[in-house]
Amino acid sequence: MLKDMKWWGWGDPAYAFPLDEKPLLWPFIQKTLGLSDSCRKTPPIDRAQVRLPEQKTNAGFVQAINGFLKPTQIAIDDEQRLIHTYGKSFPDLFRVRKGIVDNAPDMVLFAECHVEVEKIVQAAKQFNIRLVPFGGGTNIVGGVEHLDHSQMRVTLDMRRMSRVLGIDEGSSTASIEAGSPGPKLEEDLNALGYSLGHMPDSFEFATLGGWLATRSAGMQSDAYGKIEDMVVAMKMVSPMGTIETKLTPKSSAGPDIDQIICGSEGTLGVITEATMKVHPVPPVKDYHGVLFRDFESGSEAIHEAISRNASPTMFRLQDIAETGLAFSMKKPSTGFTKMIETQYKKYLKSKGFATPCLMMIGFEGDADHAADMRRKVLPIVKNRGGHHLGNSVGKTFQKNKFAVPYLRDILMNHGCMVDVAETAAVWSKLMPLYRAARDTIQAQFKKEGYPGYIGCHISHSYVDGASLYFTFAAQQIEGKELEQYYRFKRLITETFMQNGGTLTHHHAVGYEHRPWMEREVTRPGLTLLRGLKSTLDPSGIMNPGKLVPPEDKDSNSPTPATTVPFE
Amino acid sequence: MLKDMKWWGWGDPAYAFPLDEKPLLWPFIQKTLGLSDSCRKTPPIDRAQVRLPEQKTNAGFVQAINGFLKPTQIAIDDEQRLIHTYGKSFPDLFRVRKGIVDNAPDMVLFAECHVEVEKIVQAAKQFNIRLVPFGGGTNIVGGVEHLDHSQMRVTLDMRRMSRVLGIDEGSSTASIEAGSPGPKLEEDLNALGYSLGHMPDSFEFATLGGWLATRSAGMQSDAYGKIEDMVVAMKMVSPMGTIETKLTPKSSAGPDIDQIICGSEGTLGVITEATMKVHPVPPVKDYHGVLFRDFESGSEAIHEAISRNASPTMFRLQDIAETGLAFSMKKPSTGFTKMIETQYKKYLKSKGFATPCLMMIGFEGDADHAADMRRKVLPIVKNRGGHHLGNSVGKTFQKNKFAVPYLRDILMNHGCMVDVAETAAVWSKLMPLYRAARDTIQAQFKKEGYPGYIGCHISHSYVDGASLYFTFAAQQIEGKELEQYYRFKRLITETFMQNGGTLTHHHAVGYEHRPWMEREVTRPGLTLLRGLKSTLDPSGIMNPGKLVPPEDKDSNSPTPATTVPFE
Repeated sequence: MLKDMKWWGWGDPAYAFPLDEKPLLWPFIQKTLGLSDSCRKTPPIDRAQVRLPEQKTNAGFVQAINGFLKPTQIAIDDEQRLIHTYGKSFPDLFRVRKGIVDNAPDMVLFAECHVEVEKIVQAAKQFNIRLVPFGGGTNIVGGVEHLDHSQMRVTLDMRRMSRVLGIDEGSSTASIEAGSPGPKLEEDLNALGYSLGHMPDSFEFATLGGWLATRSAGMQSDAYGKIEDMVVAMKMVSPMGTIETKLTPKSSAGPDIDQIICGSEGTLGVITEATMKVHPVPPVKDYHGVLFRDFESGSEAIHEAISRNASPTMFRLQDIAETGLAFSMKKPSTGFTKMIETQYKKYLKSKGFATPCLMMIGFEGDADHAADMRRKVLPIVKNRGGHHLGNSVGKTFQKNKFAVPYLRDILMNHGCMVDVAETAAVWSKLMPLYRAARDTIQAQFKKEGYPGYIGCHISHSYVDGASLYFTFAAQQIEGKELEQYYRFKRLITETFMQNGGTLTHHHAVGYEHRPWMEREVTRPGLTLLRGLKSTLDPSGIMNPGKLVPPEDKDSNSPTPATTVPFE
Repeated sequence: MLKDMKWWGWGDPAYAFPLDEKPLLWPFIQKTLGLSDSCRKTPPIDRAQVRLPEQKTNAGFVQAINGFLKPTQIAIDDEQRLIHTYGKSFPDLFRVRKGIVDNAPDMVLFAECHVEVEKIVQAAKQFNIRLVPFGGGTNIVGGVEHLDHSQMRVTLDMRRMSRVLGIDEGSSTASIEAGSPGPKLEEDLNALGYSLGHMPDSFEFATLGGWLATRSAGMQSDAYGKIEDMVVAMKMVSPMGTIETKLTPKSSAGPDIDQIICGSEGTLGVITEATMKVHPVPPVKDYHGVLFRDFESGSEAIHEAISRNASPTMFRLQDIAETGLAFSMKKPSTGFTKMIETQYKKYLKSKGFATPCLMMIGFEGDADHAADMRRKVLPIVKNRGGHHLGNSVGKTFQKNKFAVPYLRDILMNHGCMVDVAETAAVWSKLMPLYRAARDTIQAQFKKEGYPGYIGCHISHSYVDGASLYFTFAAQQIEGKELEQYYRFKRLITETFMQNGGTLTHHHAVGYEHRPWMEREVTRPGLTLLRGLKSTLDPSGIMNPGKLVPPEDKDSNSPTPATTVPFE
């Protein structure tokens, strides 16, 4: 059975963020965001009150798909339409919690094999249907929302295509159907002794195809690369036919078509299968905590380590604000342990770690390799002023790593805005960019006259640079929640662009980032991207309105004008 | 001053391959190819007898470029036209040595800055000129030859654009003009303490832009990647304007435009600048020789080392035939040394190394890193049956690494056909592919009734596979030299394709590999590549006829019918 997320929020409906187990957390949040105990409560609308829009239908298309799909593969019920309406950005959740679902699909299809996808795409082409591929629905830039109301809107759920089709142990590659969600994918590979090692925050729900279509980055990307670095070959069903790229480690036979498909966000076609580099399940997964006096020295430690071939499986460095949040999630100790900890904190404070930055370092692999990495990395980190906490904090990190996204639902139940923004830059620009973004958002909170939170971490590092991942939150301005959100979103994105950052390092473009695409790739670059689209999808049926801004804003191009007030 | 290669062969006109210093080499070649002392001599035609074709001109274009180029940037003399007619494949050299230069450019331009390239491309677009970008002219798949005779043919020599524009030491990146040839590029970077570390066989002459346009691979690619892995950002002047990609370590803002430009072979535009990852000049460059009893066990050693994070700067493994050739280049020893060597050879023979395979392993970096790699790699290599020769043979390799291409000219002076073919495959397919290609070519020599040489090496390794680089040679069949060459070329390429190899790992497509492109990328993949072309170069002025086969073979598309008899 497919595990659907909550229609009104993140993740497993059966799981609630264990706020009770973290008694320091809520007070921390209350203080940071200025939330009183009697603050406004904003629960989602009652499910029964959500009215899905009237359904468009296309008789020819319906007849065609009934010719090759089973009835269980075709859904037109409100439950499925609702679940497939949005991704999980703040504007997505804000709207769905209010019952605003104008852009719901008219129909949801569940393909079970590559050939069915080919037939669906061909039928969509023939009958001029708007088709949005859907993986886990974890996208937070508007990637899965239907924007074009002119025709019947169909969402293609890929999650029933989740088999590992084959593994080539001699080459450490696995061919996998694109609809496989993270946990199933890892289970299937683990059963064969292998791992993909791709663990983004979206891991529990997102699919391989979704990751590829958006150039996802997992927590262990320092060792295994971003998803586009792991791909060896792909199949993508486009309206012009199925492109199958060569199963080869490298090639110089023209432009790299894998790297055209990666990041295409369903606008060129549907990724159905991919052959990925895999590696033996690492027997050792050893995660260590290190404290730094400031974000800068931690960042320098990462840079030095990576430059000196001392690259662990994961480097993750939180700034002071995010470290404060992380520590507030710690279960308070009692008795003797508490006494020891109090002394320890005093000691740390005396050494300049009163408001530290937490770094997590992962060492995965066989025992020799993990030990070798530790031997190389830890001295560099210590030499840069890092205080080694050992690996107990690492165990906590490993245990809680997928819990944090659930916290947002609690905040949204309490009238808060909360979302994330991420970028990457070369090392020389990284800290100036970090400070500019943090200071800009803090200044904006001040200007708007309310407290707010902005925290950041570095989670993906390269020889030439690293990514920055910001989380920002504040109380919503009642009645102007989306304007408020887009004001902050625009501000931080503008700061990225003006300080040498990329528009997005691993969340992709969707429609939220569209307005900056011309500045990201230059105008002729946009011409190129539009040419890709018109070549493979000449009638514009695939995920319309995403990735590339409409050529002429006055034209009839699909623009979610009511939801993207800044275009 | 620009260092032009010999018009009739490879490399520096002032350098001759030192055959006299290698008294074992020529006898080895004579024996292998069945060449008698009185064999046919086939020197190139006398330069004075080479007749360049009549020049087309376009008054509007000539006037336009005279408006912004100095007279010294415009060449219409036969010397420059001749030097810019071909690359350096066997068919290129065979034809030029016969004085067949029908496809010579009408004019050669020397751009000196990005803006000039923009103006040249715009003028070419306005006046419907055929424009071929030219770097070192080392291409061996027909990449720089003019194929379209319908309009004025202009070759754009990029080598006067060779400055390092800037270096970002904090991020280990350098911005470099695309016309910089290998030696100048390394000298300029070395002067700043840095190195690109890209040393393909073409190093002495080829340019950064040429490498990028063809996805070149250097000898140290195991450490630094192929050229497309080193690129951070690029500028390409297309007929639709200049695309400037984002200077960022990674991005998820759509398809990777750098990876569209890389491998575009001048068909989409002219690469003018690139920002590349660089690294400090390695203080240690330690190259070791190891012998293996057979190619398979050497290949397994590379695979195991790379799988176990024991990846040196270079692995290069020669098969028995190529090792035989390499050893024949050794200066014979005398006296006591000779006595020792004879004993040593006997010892090796008794241990099963009568006809060994030579592996070169490079360890570059600071002393710690080089030592660390040695500690990890050598035990694996020995455990797989490798006999460690130490690092004296490595010094010989380092000294001679760019000399071998010069040997071909000597062979062509003696009526021999000699060329190379390369591919890559995943590990599970690599040795079957190797044996199939070797056996197919050997069987063909047998079938055609003359002796021949086919040797191979692995020179670029990845976790999922490696490249295979074949050299083949035989006496030419007089009067049917090109048919003979293309028969072998077709045969080995077909064997690559049928055994899971890529069409080309680092030599690119040009027109020689065009006939297999549909099988390489599938028909919809070809549609995609054609869409890239029609988007950025709608009037088809940029390097016409390269990379993608003509859509309709009966159409007027430029096909060098007389030179590509197998299309």
